[in-house]
This record gives sequence, C-alpha cells and structure tokens, in this order.
Amino acid sequence: MTDKMKAIGYQFSDASPTYFEQDIPEAKGHDLLIKISAIAVNPIDTKVKASITTRLETPRILGWDAVGTVISAGENTTLLNVGDNVFYAGDISRPGCYAQYQLVDERIAAKAPLVLKPEQSAAMPLASITAWEALFSRLKIFPRYDADKTILIIGGAGGVGSIAIQLAKVVANLNVIATASRPETEQWCRRLGADHIIDHNADLIGQYRMLNIEKPDYILCLANTDQYFDAMAALIAPEGMICSLVNSETKYDMNVLKTKSAGFIWEFMFTRPMFKTKNMTAQHNILTNIATMLDEGKIISTLQQTMGPITPDNITKAHQQLQTGQTIGKIALTAME
Amino acid sequence: MTDKMKAIGYQFSDASPTYFEQDIPEAKGHDLLIKISAIAVNPIDTKVKASITTRLETPRILGWDAVGTVISAGENTTLLNVGDNVFYAGDISRPGCYAQYQLVDERIAAKAPLVLKPEQSAAMPLASITAWEALFSRLKIFPRYDADKTILIIGGAGGVGSIAIQLAKVVANLNVIATASRPETEQWCRRLGADHIIDHNADLIGQYRMLNIEKPDYILCLANTDQYFDAMAALIAPEGMICSLVNSETKYDMNVLKTKSAGFIWEFMFTRPMFKTKNMTAQHNILTNIATMLDEGKIISTLQQTMGPITPDNITKAHQQLQTGQTIGKIALTAME
Repeated sequence: MTDKMKAIGYQFSDASPTYFEQDIPEAKGHDLLIKISAIAVNPIDTKVKASITTRLETPRILGWDAVGTVISAGENTTLLNVGDNVFYAGDISRPGCYAQYQLVDERIAAKAPLVLKPEQSAAMPLASITAWEALFSRLKIFPRYDADKTILIIGGAGGVGSIAIQLAKVVANLNVIATASRPETEQWCRRLGADHIIDHNADLIGQYRMLNIEKPDYILCLANTDQYFDAMAALIAPEGMICSLVNSETKYDMNVLKTKSAGFIWEFMFTRPMFKTKNMTAQHNILTNIATMLDEGKIISTLQQTMGPITPDNITKAHQQLQTGQTIGKIALTAME
Repeated sequence: MTDKMKAIGYQFSDASPTYFEQDIPEAKGHDLLIKISAIAVNPIDTKVKASITTRLETPRILGWDAVGTVISAGENTTLLNVGDNVFYAGDISRPGCYAQYQLVDERIAAKAPLVLKPEQSAAMPLASITAWEALFSRLKIFPRYDADKTILIIGGAGGVGSIAIQLAKVVANLNVIATASRPETEQWCRRLGADHIIDHNADLIGQYRMLNIEKPDYILCLANTDQYFDAMAALIAPEGMICSLVNSETKYDMNVLKTKSAGFIWEFMFTRPMFKTKNMTAQHNILTNIATMLDEGKIISTLQQTMGPITPDNITKAHQQLQTGQTIGKIALTAME
C-alpha cells in the first residue's frame, strides 16, 4: 500500500484552493522525492491559477520555490543524496510545492544554504535562477570583462529585482541604476547595492538624463514589458541589450534598435527544465553558487515576510499580497502541519 | 593652394552619378588620407542613394569598401603609418570611396592582405566587419565554448553570407546550414564550407525538419527580415538568438520567443564609427584578423567580378547588378583613371 500525502490544489481559476489527498509519488530516473520544509510564492503561481479555464478532475498543485529533505532518489541521480537539505524552483510543467512531498529533477536542485532558516532559503531559488540567467545567460554579462558597464533594472524591489541588484554588484561589479517608486522600496534597493534610483512611475528617459551618466549597456525589465518597451528602446546604449520577463501583449517596432545594433531577449526560468536542454544542469550550478554566496554573506536572502504554515487561507493571503504589486522581496510559508 | 581630386557624386536619388572636383581633404586627429586603389560596391550604396530626396548643393560621394595607400596621417594616429597599404569600410556619415582620395579614421582601418590584388582586398572590409560583428559581438558565439552549436544563415551566397559561412566554420567550428536558391549559389556556399543547404524560396521550416538535425542555436538573416521573422521565431532553438541586418517595416510579435528564452538583435556595421563607441578600435582588430586569415589561406576573398575602373558608367552597372538580388559574392572596381 502506497503512503498518502496532503496537498493544496486548484480545480478552477476562480475557485478557492482546497486540501486533497494523493499518493506520495515515487522518485525514478533523475528525480528526488522531497519532504518540504518551507516554500515561497511567486507571480507565476497566480498566472498559472488564472490559466485554469476548464474545471480539472485532479486539482493543480501550484508553487515553484521550495526547500526540503531528500527522502529517496531515482536510479540516475549523481548530484544529490538521500538526507540532503536541498532548495529548488522546479518545473512549471509538473506539480508544484503546495504539498507535503514533491518530486524534482536533481539537475535543477542544489544543497540549500547552511546558515539560513528554511523560509529564508525557500525565498531564493526561482528569483535567483531568473536573475542569474537574465544577467549571465541572456544579457551575457561577463564579470571581469564587462566590469565598467551600466545596467538599468526596472522594478528593483521585487523578488527578482532584489537578487538581480545584488548579483549585478557582487558578481559583475556593474554600475546599477534601479527603479523604485516609494521611500521604503528605494531604501531596500540602496541597501542591496543600487548606485542610483529613479522612479518607474515618472518619466524614465528624463530622470535617466538627469543622472548625467552614460546610457545603460543593459536593461533588465521586471515590470510590464509593453509599458516600458519604447522608453527602453530610447535609453539603451549602442550595442546594448534589453532583457524582459513579462509576456508582451502588443507587437514591437524593433527597427528603433537598428542603428544602435541593439537587441531584445526574454528570460523564462522554466525554459531549461521544460525543453530538457542539454545544459539544464546549469540550474544546479546556479543554485550551488547562490547557496555559497548566501553562506559567505556576499548576498542576503530577500525574504521579507513569513505567512505561517502552508494552508489554503495563508496561500490565498500570500497571493493577495503579491497582487497588490507592492511586495518588497519575497513571501514564504512554513511546512504543512 | 590646395590640390584638387576627382570624385563621383549624386545630387538626387534619381539622377545619374557625375564627376566633380573638390579639394583633397587634410588628415587631422585620428584620420588617415588614403589614395584609393580599388573599391567594392554594397547594397548600402544604393540605399543611401535612394535616401537623397532633396537636391544636394554638394554631391554625395557613396562607397564604403576600399583599399589604398596612406598619404598622410593626423596627429593622433598610432596604429597605421604613411606608406601603409590599408583596407577599410569607413563611416556612413562621412564621404565614401567613389573618389581618388578619402579620409578614414585609423581605428576602423587596418593593413590590407599582402597576397591579394587590390580588388580582392577591396571586396572584404564591409562584409567581413558585418559578418564578424554579427557572429561574435551580436550572437556572442564563443569559438571554443560553442563549437558544437548550429547556425542557420539565410542568404548564404551574398557579400556578407559568403564571409559569414567561412567564419562560422573556420573560426567558430559551427554546424552551418546556409540558404541558396540556385545551383550556382548552392555550389558557392558548399565551397565556402556550408554543411547543409536549404532553399530560401521554399518552406524553410519544412526543409529544416527534413535535415533531421537539432534546431539552430543561432540564425543570421541577411535577407528581408520581415519576410523571414515568423519562420525564424518558429525555428530557433530554446535559448537561441536571431541576428538580422535588413530594416524591418512591420512590427514583430516578440512573445513567440518567450517560452524559449530566445532573442533578436540587429547588426549594423556603422554603429561603432557613427556613435564613436569606446570599442571602435575593435574594427581595426577585426580587419587585422581578416587580413591574416586571407594571407594564411584560411578564408578566401569573396570577389566574383571586377567592373573596370571607377567611372559613373561602371558604378551604375555595378548598382544594377546588385539590385538584381542575384549577385554571388562581391563586385569590385579599380582606381579612377
């Protein structure tokens, strides 16, 4: 007889989340079975929820940020072992972490930081992988070679921005301009290392000009891409690159980037696990680097709030908080009771 | 009294080119004064000609591919000397090379190949800089690191394509799929090193699938960008990058690249000289590399046809040939008589 576990699922976009029971899955191949000790929520959770437009027989388990202990390991695993305390974002095409147990491919997981509480570690994987891939795989910033360059990070205080600012300073040593619109978010961005702050609710081009610094070689847009495309195209330096995370709903006049030999690229952290790219183990390596940097105090956890244990009510509260668009850093929850 | 030189100029887009006389310019700053021994024509020449929509008092001198001898050098020059035989594309915002003499910034010129005839060298600069920047500065291909990857080059037999195929094989060791639509262009692309040929006048996606190889990590589009954008977006591999040269006239749905974390970037070889970027000397270095590779026989000149000396008639014939869209490699002209 297979053991059962509790999970929280969604059967329809408008329905409230509810507990349900299912078999604890078995770890095969590259998979690890994880007993979850803490999770964090992300904007992608509410986007996936909103996409459930026909009533599901089996509820969908959301959640793509977790820390926990390896309970068993598939026959092809080589990177991590039973008993390891690991953290990971996971794969959007598989069940998430609003549950007691979860399977994750070891190639996209790594040993969790040693010095942090589970909630602090849970706040890190998805945003760290996203920020790292955006800076180093998409914008192709080379730490020593590009050290004199400038990056503009639109939406500096959110989950990804809070790590991107730190990595842009600590790893790449760039000149970092971040956007923030409130005194508390401005202060948070400065604490993380931003050199200049401008307000994304006011005229970006005019404010940037007032800084009297060179045009940004890189722009990382963590806010609404459609809203900022024209300003980014005007601001980007010759030979510059723009990276964005949020789906576009309009078409873009790419020709405005032509004379500058500039470009635009997306970062979507689930590309590697979804397409099982040859380099998907890069996410294991990124998380290993992040854990080391956290343990050595080179970067800090972006956890700002813990909502209590994983329950339907606490999850709903966390989603509501995310949807205000005013969240600083990350919101975590502790293991299901 | 200043010495005079002959040049060929355009006063209006529809007018025929005519000889005119002007003072031989003086080399100052980073400039070199060049006595021109051969030139080549490029599609940009006819585009600039078409852009002359009001009658000019002083005729515009076109032409951005030349080889010649340094006659005098400005006070800030350090890379090249009087007497050097040099080759260069030049700067689109300055007078071109349909003339006896021309000024060029030494940071975008280099010593010409030793073993080639002037016409063979003149065929190389603009297309070599464009192909090199597209592959290594825009697509950011890293020769050893990316050696197992695949590039699709749309329009393989033209001026830029003929060099891009060679550099993609010789420098980067990529798997190269080039497009060609006629037996003679297919043969030319294979001679330059292309591993597979597909026809850009037929269904690219279907033909690519028939090759039974992995999706292209890189696509370099040397043909009409608008015509190929949708096919390129469908074909590009996850984490892939598309580079294009020809201005767009429509807007693009960038969202189709999102799930793949893919991107799009322009290459315009006049970006560095026009914006006087800090790294504009990179073009001196590219041309120095190209000259060495030509002298060592690692790549071949893409010259296919010499039209005789620079005269209004020969220039017009060369433009007509270019505008057929059927040109293989490059067309050169020898010095004004």
